[in-house]
Amino acid sequence: MSPAPAAVAALLDAAMKVVGPAHVLRSPDELSPYQDQFAFAPSGAHVPGGVVAPENVEQIQAILKLANEKKVPLWPVSRGKNLGYGGAAPVVSGSVILDLSRMRRILHVDEKLAYCVVEPGVGFFDLQDYLDEHGIKLWLGAPGQSWGSVLGNALEHGGSTTPLGEHAAQICGMEVLLANGDIVRTGMGAMENSATWHLYKHAFGPGWDQMFTQSNFGIVTKLGLWLLPEPEATLQLKMEVDDVDALEWIVDSLGPLRTNGTLNQFCAIRNYMGTATRNTQRSDWYTGPGAMPDSVIDTIQRQLKVGWWDISLRLHGVDGANRANADAIQRAVSKHTDRKFEITAWKQGEPRARSGQPRATMNSMHKLNWPGGRGGFLAFSPVMPLDGKLALAQFRRTRERMQEFGFDYYGAVYLADRALMVVSEVFFDQDDADQIQRLRRLFPVLVADAKAQGYGEYRGHIAYMDEIAGVFDFNHHALRRLNERIKETLDPNGILAPGKQGIWPPGQGPAIKGRKA
Amino acid sequence: MSPAPAAVAALLDAAMKVVGPAHVLRSPDELSPYQDQFAFAPSGAHVPGGVVAPENVEQIQAILKLANEKKVPLWPVSRGKNLGYGGAAPVVSGSVILDLSRMRRILHVDEKLAYCVVEPGVGFFDLQDYLDEHGIKLWLGAPGQSWGSVLGNALEHGGSTTPLGEHAAQICGMEVLLANGDIVRTGMGAMENSATWHLYKHAFGPGWDQMFTQSNFGIVTKLGLWLLPEPEATLQLKMEVDDVDALEWIVDSLGPLRTNGTLNQFCAIRNYMGTATRNTQRSDWYTGPGAMPDSVIDTIQRQLKVGWWDISLRLHGVDGANRANADAIQRAVSKHTDRKFEITAWKQGEPRARSGQPRATMNSMHKLNWPGGRGGFLAFSPVMPLDGKLALAQFRRTRERMQEFGFDYYGAVYLADRALMVVSEVFFDQDDADQIQRLRRLFPVLVADAKAQGYGEYRGHIAYMDEIAGVFDFNHHALRRLNERIKETLDPNGILAPGKQGIWPPGQGPAIKGRKA
Repeated sequence: MSPAPAAVAALLDAAMKVVGPAHVLRSPDELSPYQDQFAFAPSGAHVPGGVVAPENVEQIQAILKLANEKKVPLWPVSRGKNLGYGGAAPVVSGSVILDLSRMRRILHVDEKLAYCVVEPGVGFFDLQDYLDEHGIKLWLGAPGQSWGSVLGNALEHGGSTTPLGEHAAQICGMEVLLANGDIVRTGMGAMENSATWHLYKHAFGPGWDQMFTQSNFGIVTKLGLWLLPEPEATLQLKMEVDDVDALEWIVDSLGPLRTNGTLNQFCAIRNYMGTATRNTQRSDWYTGPGAMPDSVIDTIQRQLKVGWWDISLRLHGVDGANRANADAIQRAVSKHTDRKFEITAWKQGEPRARSGQPRATMNSMHKLNWPGGRGGFLAFSPVMPLDGKLALAQFRRTRERMQEFGFDYYGAVYLADRALMVVSEVFFDQDDADQIQRLRRLFPVLVADAKAQGYGEYRGHIAYMDEIAGVFDFNHHALRRLNERIKETLDPNGILAPGKQGIWPPGQGPAIKGRKA
Repeated sequence: MSPAPAAVAALLDAAMKVVGPAHVLRSPDELSPYQDQFAFAPSGAHVPGGVVAPENVEQIQAILKLANEKKVPLWPVSRGKNLGYGGAAPVVSGSVILDLSRMRRILHVDEKLAYCVVEPGVGFFDLQDYLDEHGIKLWLGAPGQSWGSVLGNALEHGGSTTPLGEHAAQICGMEVLLANGDIVRTGMGAMENSATWHLYKHAFGPGWDQMFTQSNFGIVTKLGLWLLPEPEATLQLKMEVDDVDALEWIVDSLGPLRTNGTLNQFCAIRNYMGTATRNTQRSDWYTGPGAMPDSVIDTIQRQLKVGWWDISLRLHGVDGANRANADAIQRAVSKHTDRKFEITAWKQGEPRARSGQPRATMNSMHKLNWPGGRGGFLAFSPVMPLDGKLALAQFRRTRERMQEFGFDYYGAVYLADRALMVVSEVFFDQDDADQIQRLRRLFPVLVADAKAQGYGEYRGHIAYMDEIAGVFDFNHHALRRLNERIKETLDPNGILAPGKQGIWPPGQGPAIKGRKA
């Protein structure tokens, strides 16, 4: 599946004439930042064959032409910072990274209608700086680690804590390059001089926007994304809960309020490790074998003054409405606990730090220090029904597996409208061969455990995309077969990100048992 | 493009063995209900070649096989009641209607997680009866004329007035038959025994749900649709406004509250004709030539005690939150008028009639009596930016055109988050040849007027699908060309609804000027 080295070299040579020599990289040192920074896959896997960094659509078109001629796969990345999932590295070794980070224009921000149009290279810091400098009262929903691309984050189903925190759902209108270089604009933007490209999602005919998310059907070069008008007021509600089994009543008391819209954001319920990894290292607490025992966990919680779970909720809108909704939320949990939410109130004009606005930060990488050495992490993100009993069972199941393989449980539960994700992360020392081996054995077991419950993942590391796609097995993997029919039509040479999300060009990828003709 | 009559006859003969003779229709009398009930197209256009009504997926698969063999196009309809847009009639005469109304099972209703799974034939009355009989506290958003299909309405981008009123956006997980009979389940449902098929939209990989809306890429046989948990309380806000130009401040005062979520439903601003058509006929007021003059309109408004515009807003949720949001709404409009909203309050347990729940009704067809004779109507639904000045200009432009062609203006403005639709309807007497001629000349002019502003439509009558699709002309109609590449791959014989939404099998459909190879 990897391209012939001579073909890769020929592509890189030709690409130098397109983008200039400075924007073609091929030495090991130059390629190093494009490798998986938390690598745990066997040596030789997911190694880029080179990097080409175009600065505009015309250059991408020229590179697409070369890739089609030379049958060399490209692996497009926006900024390549989705580190828990492989960073900039490709599924197929030898793929040439199409680094779009030089395409970094903020093409439009509309304060009144609350949206932006960005190129792939625009990072959360770029967009936030732009909003700040121009005094534009729109909030972006920066993720915990904000060096990544606004466009890439939305395409990869990233999230944040505002009412518009399901970022893929905020996508409205794209410009996409197909593998043959044709330029398509989606939705209402499929019109010369459209006045509504980024304003309405359900345009005339089939809706393509979501087809280009987590996808290898095209290269998104412009993205319309809805932003949140600065709310009149916010309330942040926090509560620490000591009992590990409380997860069940937490989900069951907040869930119905999430489904009916009283709570309209991804509510986060994080475990004590969020605090522990921020301020300390594992060796501060424990140096014995296996996962930390409960006695150590008790010590951590006592000394850091945290519970097992930390509930963090946010309300945005008219102050009176926020207060009424907060009362309803307190009433719901008061059936299960005497504790009151600690409330932080903010109104427009007050210091921004109290507002709860998810501004761009680099704080969440502190957690990489936890295992000691060169830290890495791998996330496991199954989607399951919004149900307390099921959430507790899934958490326990995952925690036990992680302990069985000698890892401490780090996780958060995010409540969506009707589903929840138990996002669990494994931290490891990249230079500890034993940990790496255990991790490699663990992950497929976690996927299989979830599959046994009828749960699949909504995202996954490049090393496990086939593994995760493999659980979507209805009717001999009908969805994969449909995706691969489209892939073959739109990209007959298989040059765009082969293997991404388990979607392969013909003849590549794992065999499907009992596959129809 | 129409199939050979002998091929149609052969398909219908063979289909009798699949579905039974009683479920194959072919005589003119039998086909009459499947024609456009408000026909204005030239004789011979949009005439069904026959009807086949399967009762399950296996029968559809058998009919697809026959249609592929005999190269006869099928026109799938759920219940065929989208009357303003052609009802059950096909774009291409001779197409065989695949009437799915016998597939009428409500497969699942989940009260806690607030969704249903329905087959195509389930109507709004069916679902409402089911919810009522089982005491399930979920609201469906029935459209004004509720005899249609729940599934069909969502697929065709229908709407209602609740916070979940953008029905296409509530779709979560489908089962779809492709033209070759393959069965695909989308999203999280693409897994045997999935526990989350209808619970989460942004699953692993490209999102297909919206690709099967307003589409001829497959036949949706099962649809997951999110419903609204009965709110704790509602407030309905109503205000009549006399001045026709007030539309500008109405949109500009409510728009920002719509974008920031204070108002979270399709707000309706209807003109006086909503009341006039409900209770009277045109001849009660005016029998002169051309559109009704302003003096007559004044008389209607005075006598019926209505303003030019009727603002109708709804708030759902915790009562205190609704009240706080209502105050914010009143404050916003109070910059422009001394009037106060007339408020109807409701809480759970009080008589349902005051709740504002959009229950299934047949009331809105009264308006067909307006022109006298056998009434028909045609709707024109461009999408434009959420902006008062632009809304007023578009309303005036459309009204003047309608008056120029001798029709009274009937319309409503619906506010979405960042866009609005000025939905205008033309009423006509189906037996008045002069009116029909004027209507046929008018509609393309309305489409062109909107296109000149950069506006396209989000839905359209079968007679004008090419006209409407034609305005989406970016890069030599790149979106149409992309759709048609997919069409050719998934449906090489072009048997599924050729021409729907302007998407054609190869070699059919209008030529694209300057089209690339």
